[in-house]
Amino acid sequence: MKFIDLRSDTVTHPTEEMRKAMSEAEVGDDVYDEDPTIKKLEFLAADILGKEAALFVPSGTFGNQLALFTHCNKGDEVILGDDCHIVQHEAGASAVIAGVQLRTINSDHGILNPKEIESKIRKFEDIHYPKTGLIALENAHSNGRVIPLKNFKEIREIADNYNIPIHLDGARIFNAATALNVDPKKIAKYADSISFCLSKGLCAPIGSILVGNSEFIEKAKKKRKIMGGGLRQAGVLAAAGIISLEKMRFRLQEDHENAKYLADQLSRFDFIDIIENVEINMVFFKINKEFNKKDFILFLRKNGIKINPPDENIYRFVTHYWIKKEDIDKTIKFIEKFFNQ
Amino acid sequence: MKFIDLRSDTVTHPTEEMRKAMSEAEVGDDVYDEDPTIKKLEFLAADILGKEAALFVPSGTFGNQLALFTHCNKGDEVILGDDCHIVQHEAGASAVIAGVQLRTINSDHGILNPKEIESKIRKFEDIHYPKTGLIALENAHSNGRVIPLKNFKEIREIADNYNIPIHLDGARIFNAATALNVDPKKIAKYADSISFCLSKGLCAPIGSILVGNSEFIEKAKKKRKIMGGGLRQAGVLAAAGIISLEKMRFRLQEDHENAKYLADQLSRFDFIDIIENVEINMVFFKINKEFNKKDFILFLRKNGIKINPPDENIYRFVTHYWIKKEDIDKTIKFIEKFFNQ
Amino acid sequence: MKFIDLRSDTVTHPTEEMRKAMSEAEVGDDVYDEDPTIKKLEFLAADILGKEAALFVPSGTFGNQLALFTHCNKGDEVILGDDCHIVQHEAGASAVIAGVQLRTINSDHGILNPKEIESKIRKFEDIHYPKTGLIALENAHSNGRVIPLKNFKEIREIADNYNIPIHLDGARIFNAATALNVDPKKIAKYADSISFCLSKGLCAPIGSILVGNSEFIEKAKKKRKIMGGGLRQAGVLAAAGIISLEKMRFRLQEDHENAKYLADQLSRFDFIDIIENVEINMVFFKINKEFNKKDFILFLRKNGIKINPPDENIYRFVTHYWIKKEDIDKTIKFIEKFFNQ
Amino acid sequence: MKFIDLRSDTVTHPTEEMRKAMSEAEVGDDVYDEDPTIKKLEFLAADILGKEAALFVPSGTFGNQLALFTHCNKGDEVILGDDCHIVQHEAGASAVIAGVQLRTINSDHGILNPKEIESKIRKFEDIHYPKTGLIALENAHSNGRVIPLKNFKEIREIADNYNIPIHLDGARIFNAATALNVDPKKIAKYADSISFCLSKGLCAPIGSILVGNSEFIEKAKKKRKIMGGGLRQAGVLAAAGIISLEKMRFRLQEDHENAKYLADQLSRFDFIDIIENVEINMVFFKINKEFNKKDFILFLRKNGIKINPPDENIYRFVTHYWIKKEDIDKTIKFIEKFFNQ
Repeated sequence: MKFIDLRSDTVTHPTEEMRKAMSEAEVGDDVYDEDPTIKKLEFLAADILGKEAALFVPSGTFGNQLALFTHCNKGDEVILGDDCHIVQHEAGASAVIAGVQLRTINSDHGILNPKEIESKIRKFEDIHYPKTGLIALENAHSNGRVIPLKNFKEIREIADNYNIPIHLDGARIFNAATALNVDPKKIAKYADSISFCLSKGLCAPIGSILVGNSEFIEKAKKKRKIMGGGLRQAGVLAAAGIISLEKMRFRLQEDHENAKYLADQLSRFDFIDIIENVEINMVFFKINKEFNKKDFILFLRKNGIKINPPDENIYRFVTHYWIKKEDIDKTIKFIEKFFNQ
Repeated sequence: MKFIDLRSDTVTHPTEEMRKAMSEAEVGDDVYDEDPTIKKLEFLAADILGKEAALFVPSGTFGNQLALFTHCNKGDEVILGDDCHIVQHEAGASAVIAGVQLRTINSDHGILNPKEIESKIRKFEDIHYPKTGLIALENAHSNGRVIPLKNFKEIREIADNYNIPIHLDGARIFNAATALNVDPKKIAKYADSISFCLSKGLCAPIGSILVGNSEFIEKAKKKRKIMGGGLRQAGVLAAAGIISLEKMRFRLQEDHENAKYLADQLSRFDFIDIIENVEINMVFFKINKEFNKKDFILFLRKNGIKINPPDENIYRFVTHYWIKKEDIDKTIKFIEKFFNQ
Repeated sequence: MKFIDLRSDTVTHPTEEMRKAMSEAEVGDDVYDEDPTIKKLEFLAADILGKEAALFVPSGTFGNQLALFTHCNKGDEVILGDDCHIVQHEAGASAVIAGVQLRTINSDHGILNPKEIESKIRKFEDIHYPKTGLIALENAHSNGRVIPLKNFKEIREIADNYNIPIHLDGARIFNAATALNVDPKKIAKYADSISFCLSKGLCAPIGSILVGNSEFIEKAKKKRKIMGGGLRQAGVLAAAGIISLEKMRFRLQEDHENAKYLADQLSRFDFIDIIENVEINMVFFKINKEFNKKDFILFLRKNGIKINPPDENIYRFVTHYWIKKEDIDKTIKFIEKFFNQ
Repeated sequence: MKFIDLRSDTVTHPTEEMRKAMSEAEVGDDVYDEDPTIKKLEFLAADILGKEAALFVPSGTFGNQLALFTHCNKGDEVILGDDCHIVQHEAGASAVIAGVQLRTINSDHGILNPKEIESKIRKFEDIHYPKTGLIALENAHSNGRVIPLKNFKEIREIADNYNIPIHLDGARIFNAATALNVDPKKIAKYADSISFCLSKGLCAPIGSILVGNSEFIEKAKKKRKIMGGGLRQAGVLAAAGIISLEKMRFRLQEDHENAKYLADQLSRFDFIDIIENVEINMVFFKINKEFNKKDFILFLRKNGIKINPPDENIYRFVTHYWIKKEDIDKTIKFIEKFFNQ
């Protein structure tokens, strides 16, 4: 049975074209710096984001943690939003690998207040203070929201005043660029390093990219080895990643439109409240009704639809390459059916 | 020249009685568990706070970090107020020694919102989540405020619901107990472990204490060794600490009254605003006037008064054993003189 | 130009069959535990080594470091040979990720003296001692030697006496099993966990496996996430790995014979000394002659042969799937030519 | 009952003179850099060892671990003898605090082979290699032996060739200097940093010193704070330490002579073998006889003599300030009595 899988865009399978490219990829030993397909992908990635260099890594978490590990010394402090992926969904890795102290601040639907960031920066050397080693941002945010560039500009100015680097968790940077209708360079320029995923909306089966200046990437390469991320014939994965960048990133608008369509359909139920603005490929909503949540999930599953359980009563449905408009219609139909029983 | 030192209560010298006790202390090798004076101090400390056991440590930072290291596994998450000492003034140690991920939340003058704490707790096992390993509180807070027991009670209930231990940074727990007019046990009972300082207001030259149940303290003893805090004839310090506990903790009311007196005198200047309620031995204030800050400090120093530079324009004056009422009068006189020049 | 690449078996490209399997792999999101091809590979790997469970990881270093991280607590001590891969070639990762103290002992061509291991074990609780958390072995050793099972049996008995787990770095365990002419289970049974590579001699482009009992692998899965090794549609890689296990591991004898043949040919030069017994697919040798080392490498490179520079004057040539007997003859011919110039 | 305590020189109580000095010490807040007695001690210590600067720390373990933490970056490799204190008796701290990878090499009664050290140094940048961050030596060794300066000279030359710093664990450096009959500077000059104990043979109750150049000590001061070793009125301890340096270090010859006398007396028993040369204040010996070890310890204890249980059948007796010649005679008498029962 082919499921309509609304749980996440991480579930995207590679396309036929990707599969073919992977099977034909020219490869080499990337630990020896000899994989031509990896080289091509890294060059492409750096170019698209307007940075000097790029590095292939096994996952989004790997990319973010490698960035912390490369920017910071053990014991440095990192300022970031309390609801960002690094804090929420990376299993406490920042304390294990980079060994940094997180300084988590309030986030207004993903937007950090530049003044609040500034107030947390260690402004002078003091024996009691850790050094502020990094500010970490996220765009698009994993809450489905796109952060306006004006916010990034203000944060960048503050960071520059205190000479602090910025890392951007851009797992879905191309969704953000699509939503903002800007060249991704326009987002990337506010950060010293950016990590983004080739999987998720871009459909590659495995892999993320970390970009930055050459010196940073050189240093990150050594630290990637420490973290066990030095791969061999990684070109088989890069071949899919190249299609992600050359092709798939240009079709994200379709996912966003489908998400908006899904939100519209959902909001027609009077017991459903859409929670966040639908800006990318995610719809967050609440069901204001008594019902058995397990039965709901099970009912949809039996009818070919996979959804995640709600997080504190909030459901998240995610659109992607493998979700078509008719899949949304079908989903809506079965939700209706469930609540009309 | 004997200075009127208002910078902190950390500057307190040992009293004559302490000096005498130190010189006469019966000692042994505490790594062999054979120092009788340390034993006596640890027994006394545990008893006063109503816990099973206690451990002498070299400093307040040491005590807090040892608590994190003992309660948590590497990679666990610790929920605590953004303005607490562990975050602000322990040089990023939590990421170095315990290797934990801090989750810093808003503090309303030192008071943490129990609901906000609850919202940060990891409520189920998920491969993306670190474990919430600890909640860390502080009382009296290093901002000079005393946290009401009602707040602690609410946080304790939440912690119990999720089976999460609480550590209390009680560097100035006896100031808090004095201000609240309660037995210190009444504060300590909400925490699984408490660290407090024998120095600061209690005048011992060196040393802090970590208390908890026997199993916790046994574990902490091994970790104290890892941190280089296993001392030899530590009884020389414990002798002073015993006086801190048997005598000095009962005179803190005097420091609090002096602080209130100082605040009253300061608030008589129309250009001075007292910032925080004066609840213990600290007065925070702002000077709403144009003046040369360095000259101000220098002028007082020349006249025998030591103060710290302001932190973001807020001055902190601290009273303690070596500050008498007439010292405050003298200080006020010279402030007046400076601003009348 | 197709090179004869003797630098390492890490340079092996995937076979056509692997490429086809990768392009046709049934996949799912492995972070959701839904990738059927990964499941199949992990089941197969556990079965072949006689353990309960297995986990796919991105690299050999990742597998070893994950094993240290899962077996040990921060600050534990690990006993291992000074010349093993974990010490020599994993970039100091053991101190970064697991946070363990290495206790490196002499190795006699890869063989550790059980008595020496026993002498390093912490035999009782003492506040000055770390806990001995693990013994780590390696077979086949990266020096090309195969460790006899008798040695492992003795070490296992000691480990059992003190209740200490054993991890086996079995990056080339199938080479060892081939050389010893035993079922790989016969090697694996002496270890609690084993990591091995699907790449290297087994030709998969990327990936290693960690096996152990179910509880260990469950714990490792969480820690793999911390290290950034949770992958998505990892089945594309597993498809190649399955061929490694179902097919490629049975042809390693050919590589070993080629290595022996290569050693025989090399030893016909009177200025060449073979350094280690040729037991697997590696030949170590010394050239007792004055010559320009860079020219030597360059000369071979120009003639289609890639070799690594020597490590302290010792060359290592490695045979693998893509090296045929005639490639060896060609190599010998060009070495002869170079030294006859 | 006043015991004859032969277990260690760590059991030494402060002298009357020290107690007096402690009680009269002029003190200040050392975190504010204002303790005049600490300043005096640190100046004295640096001067005696011919280095630019010194730092007071709470213990010998603290001093060594602070040195590792200050010299190295996380993940660096440290070459040191397998039997040294850092490896043997510091509870695995090197992996917790500094986060370094130990490379433990054979020690011939404390003497490290310079060639073996050289063979372990990472001689070039390689993505697989940690950086060799430090060589750590020990003199006098905790096995009671004094390392000849010729050995240090050779190691220093190698370290210089590769630009690697040397730390000397000189817990008993003044015992070494006494035994070698040289100015302690003559030992210290081979190391970039030295830690030594004011307690142990020098009788101070608490405290050690780390010396090095000014830049190193400045850096160490910040890291001491991270480790919780920033003390307040530390002058009370420094006052004793000054006497250790100005007076007690000149009387160690007496302890050495007593140790030799003790060894002579013990060797008169035909069932006792002295194990190591008696070079400082320690006697290691074996009792070749069947007897009840617990009874032996208990019998001596009842007669006012404390000894440690043997470590793998080897007893260690340590002489110090509080052991006089007649105490040795008494000890010998009771040993004789025990074995004649």
